[in-house]
Amino acid sequence: CSTGDKSSTIKVIPMQVSGAGYHSESKAKEYKHVCKRACQRAVDQLKAGALAVEAVAAALVELEDSPFTNAGMGSNLNLSGEIECDASIMDGKSLHFGAVGAISGIKNPVLVANRLLSEAQKGKLSAGRIPPCFLVGRGAHDWAVSHGIPPCPSEKMFSLSAYKRNKRKMELAEKMDTGQNQTKKRRQSSENVSVFSVEIRMIILLEISENGSGCLDTVGAVVVDLEGNVAAAVSSGGLAMKHPGRVGQAAHYGCGCWAENACNMNPYSTAVSTSGCGEHLIRTMLARECSAAMQSEDAHQALLEAMQNKFISSPFLTSEDRVLGGVIVLRCCRCVEAQPSQNIQGILVEFLWSHTTESMCVGYMSAQDSKAKTHISRLPPGTVPGQSLAIEGGVCRLMGVVE
Amino acid sequence: CSTGDKSSTIKVIPMQVSGAGYHSESKAKEYKHVCKRACQRAVDQLKAGALAVEAVAAALVELEDSPFTNAGMGSNLNLSGEIECDASIMDGKSLHFGAVGAISGIKNPVLVANRLLSEAQKGKLSAGRIPPCFLVGRGAHDWAVSHGIPPCPSEKMFSLSAYKRNKRKMELAEKMDTGQNQTKKRRQSSENVSVFSVEIRMIILLEISENGSGCLDTVGAVVVDLEGNVAAAVSSGGLAMKHPGRVGQAAHYGCGCWAENACNMNPYSTAVSTSGCGEHLIRTMLARECSAAMQSEDAHQALLEAMQNKFISSPFLTSEDRVLGGVIVLRCCRCVEAQPSQNIQGILVEFLWSHTTESMCVGYMSAQDSKAKTHISRLPPGTVPGQSLAIEGGVCRLMGVVE
Repeated sequence: CSTGDKSSTIKVIPMQVSGAGYHSESKAKEYKHVCKRACQRAVDQLKAGALAVEAVAAALVELEDSPFTNAGMGSNLNLSGEIECDASIMDGKSLHFGAVGAISGIKNPVLVANRLLSEAQKGKLSAGRIPPCFLVGRGAHDWAVSHGIPPCPSEKMFSLSAYKRNKRKMELAEKMDTGQNQTKKRRQSSENVSVFSVEIRMIILLEISENGSGCLDTVGAVVVDLEGNVAAAVSSGGLAMKHPGRVGQAAHYGCGCWAENACNMNPYSTAVSTSGCGEHLIRTMLARECSAAMQSEDAHQALLEAMQNKFISSPFLTSEDRVLGGVIVLRCCRCVEAQPSQNIQGILVEFLWSHTTESMCVGYMSAQDSKAKTHISRLPPGTVPGQSLAIEGGVCRLMGVVE
Repeated sequence: CSTGDKSSTIKVIPMQVSGAGYHSESKAKEYKHVCKRACQRAVDQLKAGALAVEAVAAALVELEDSPFTNAGMGSNLNLSGEIECDASIMDGKSLHFGAVGAISGIKNPVLVANRLLSEAQKGKLSAGRIPPCFLVGRGAHDWAVSHGIPPCPSEKMFSLSAYKRNKRKMELAEKMDTGQNQTKKRRQSSENVSVFSVEIRMIILLEISENGSGCLDTVGAVVVDLEGNVAAAVSSGGLAMKHPGRVGQAAHYGCGCWAENACNMNPYSTAVSTSGCGEHLIRTMLARECSAAMQSEDAHQALLEAMQNKFISSPFLTSEDRVLGGVIVLRCCRCVEAQPSQNIQGILVEFLWSHTTESMCVGYMSAQDSKAKTHISRLPPGTVPGQSLAIEGGVCRLMGVVE
């Protein structure tokens, strides 16, 4: 089947009215330009014939390069005043995975994760050794450099905005310790921002989280490419004031991202990226749980139940009073429709996002658009972040003419 | 119900005749003493009222302390000639998890993992920060020391036996590179040894793997305690000649170990520990898959299918010609039987092990025994390691009198 020139139908449907609402975008403003660039970069890659996994890595690089995001450049500082990053990437086609944890001195951790993935696809090393899929710390840094990824002096990755953000966070934390400012802290800690983009023959979901506590700072994306392959990636500077060596969900298999093309067992291709409290996302293995749930017929209902039963009410988090996180999800399946003159074959793409945080900002960008459109989803008024959820999404049919 | 003094019925049933067979135990000989000590240590802990998670940690400490195992003391050396260890532990009661990756200079990595687990159970840190569940590298070492776990100079952890083993491995590897010795290498690389022990009111499954390639070197254990709680742990020095910073399944959530008490959703308590090629065990998430499978009625059939479909034939490992690994599994449920004079309430425990490696040695120890008994399971003659599997196990009813 060749790719026809029929435009896709793109419409965002607030699937749960109470979860949708438009509010001030002031907090998301500084991310919009980053999102636009990231969308554009992934779109450019896909137009040039790149696979989903390459496009999702390209989007992440752009997000990591921004000093405004807590990933790569400008990441949060740990307790020792150093930057240590986590990132991972998964290719739904090969089902390979690459991850780095607590890596320092590398501008784009996602590129190291992606290189681990691609090296593993080449097969065994000398002496029959299995190539690693997960490297951490100094060893990860040295491996990256030996594979041609240039080191970046820590002082260059340390941005003024990150320093100010961390300083503010530490001050807030100290106030919290004296019992003050609880409400303000909570309000700030439950903000996050996500942006996604829709291209004619692919969809990119980009996710950027920002908040006062450094708890939810994750950059992520999910992509479906021209062939219908899915990929997902995630990158994070981790918690501000985290202990050195702490690794969050962004480096953890099944927790930070998941991508799985359709197969005999699974009718749908799925891609998921998560943000939120790393330890909660690890212990609930949320990315993989959401992916598995998306094999049910009703995507919205499946994600709703997954977020409710596998996250908010997870038996793994019974001792937690607030379970903060969010997911972006793609699922796709091939579909054929008879038309008067020709058979139309295409890909039905459902894209959803859900969050237990106070707000989530999402945006769209088609190939014809010059910039991303944004949309802010919020929890219904009066509900409690960490105990309630919002869920929204849309459907998009990517058409092609069967010859 | 009080604990009566009825002895449990312990019987090992070769569930697949072709997979069972007794052969020379020469390669397992040096581990027997270690296994006995580890069993005894866990038994002592349980008799003193310890929970499963404490007992399993105690068993692992003994295994790590041996210079003969590739865990803790005497671990394999990485490409830089250093020791970096992975370990994790999971408590089926609280569902908490702790893990360390690529940690150096600590004699017992499992104690750091266990301390992370217990610290997380205490709740949030200052400033509302979530305590970490996974630490790596230098940060993990420093966290351990700051929590009272003494450092151990690397030269003390470096044993002569480990050095010799590594030297032999490197020589073998070099020969392999020149195309020689393929068969010998394969034969050596598919050997592993596991030992488990059965106590009157608890079961410990201890697993020690040893082989020529350093591919499968994992120490693990699963335990059920007096109250029916399960726990699992795993510890590894990782691949010989691994890249510094490489983290294997032993530190990866859902991959190296899993433990989950029975709950509303799950009729059975399950505990699993895995050994084998770390990257294969990560990508198949084998510990969690086996645990989930064990909720089916027929434990043997469930494990057989899990090993076949989720490991050997896993869609995640289609490019791998040999998928080498093994699991030890415990599953328990409460049962009540009417007797002429009284109601007997007890715990029905099924313990199974399965491996795609050439052999697996298991052993038993009851509280009355002075030492562990051992049993060697091998793949049927003519089958190919990494493509075939052996599965065996037993059933044990732990009785108590209902008052």
